[in-house]
Amino acid sequence: MEIISIHTEGRSSFMDITGLVNKEVEKEGVEKGICYIFIPHTTAGVTINEAADPDVRNDIEGALDKLIPWNDNYRHREGNSAAHIKATLTGNSEMVFINEGRLVLGTWQGIFFCEFDGPRNRQIWVEIVQR
Amino acid sequence: MEIISIHTEGRSSFMDITGLVNKEVEKEGVEKGICYIFIPHTTAGVTINEAADPDVRNDIEGALDKLIPWNDNYRHREGNSAAHIKATLTGNSEMVFINEGRLVLGTWQGIFFCEFDGPRNRQIWVEIVQR
Amino acid sequence: MEIISIHTEGRSSFMDITGLVNKEVEKEGVEKGICYIFIPHTTAGVTINEAADPDVRNDIEGALDKLIPWNDNYRHREGNSAAHIKATLTGNSEMVFINEGRLVLGTWQGIFFCEFDGPRNRQIWVEIVQR
Repeated sequence: MEIISIHTEGRSSFMDITGLVNKEVEKEGVEKGICYIFIPHTTAGVTINEAADPDVRNDIEGALDKLIPWNDNYRHREGNSAAHIKATLTGNSEMVFINEGRLVLGTWQGIFFCEFDGPRNRQIWVEIVQR
Repeated sequence: MEIISIHTEGRSSFMDITGLVNKEVEKEGVEKGICYIFIPHTTAGVTINEAADPDVRNDIEGALDKLIPWNDNYRHREGNSAAHIKATLTGNSEMVFINEGRLVLGTWQGIFFCEFDGPRNRQIWVEIVQR
Repeated sequence: MEIISIHTEGRSSFMDITGLVNKEVEKEGVEKGICYIFIPHTTAGVTINEAADPDVRNDIEGALDKLIPWNDNYRHREGNSAAHIKATLTGNSEMVFINEGRLVLGTWQGIFFCEFDGPRNRQIWVEIVQR
């Protein structure tokens, strides 16, 4: 398992981690296989969506903020329940096929780390399985 | 990797792709394994839910429409942010176990391609891994 | 494939199944690998989130209840459309890395079976793949 360390900005932010994950795939030297991405946190998630226009990720982040208000009579005392709920909505893992030693994504796709309770130091766990 | 090509109808529609995916599993001739389904688009997703009553998928589609209105002061100029947001909510991949050369699903389950910005020509990427 | 049988309480409830899944991993005796968890139901899901404070899972459950009301002019005659919709929002599968014969989760993470139409007898399907 490879561990990628990142630092996130703002309370909520989506970070394009496609390049960081691809670097791990290249290091491994696997021609064909599957790359698994696992976020070991409970107030952050991961999603695959458009990487071209940053307004897309901002709109996704904004819609989640609107659906799940930061303050809403939550019981959890830490005050970050909204971040936990959003993490469940996006999910905390992804899998991407590998071909010719690189991630195979659709034309417009990128992999995004979804920070919902930042800024923080975070980890991304990556496992690469050869076929 | 196998590529299934489909054409979707309407702006939003859920298409049962269980049969199409099972055909790929049968072609591969894998007795036991895992089937990975990856949608290479950013305004479409995939979900596993009830295949028996079409009203279920219609209710899921309707609920997503209600949660994420098509027009909502989004910044993305293409005007299809709602479709991107819904794609993140459903997710763009699934994995299903294979036994005796076929997908193993629960009694009521089917695999659905979730079109959120159609009608369009779309792809479904399938990878079948033997155990 | 291993099958774990559980009985859920209440209409909606999140059950920590980390220990049950870890028991399967230990039984299999796999040192390094991946554990796949698949819920074969259409009104239940699975999520990974905080296991320490039960208020977190209660807040997640409460937020889903608020987003997706039980009664909302759904078309599906069985009356449990809200449960189907929530199952699509959480998703019905997870994958977790295995190291030294045990699931590798973040400090605060646990695996939760998400019952949305209980109480019921339910199954959790587990597949463990060695690396």
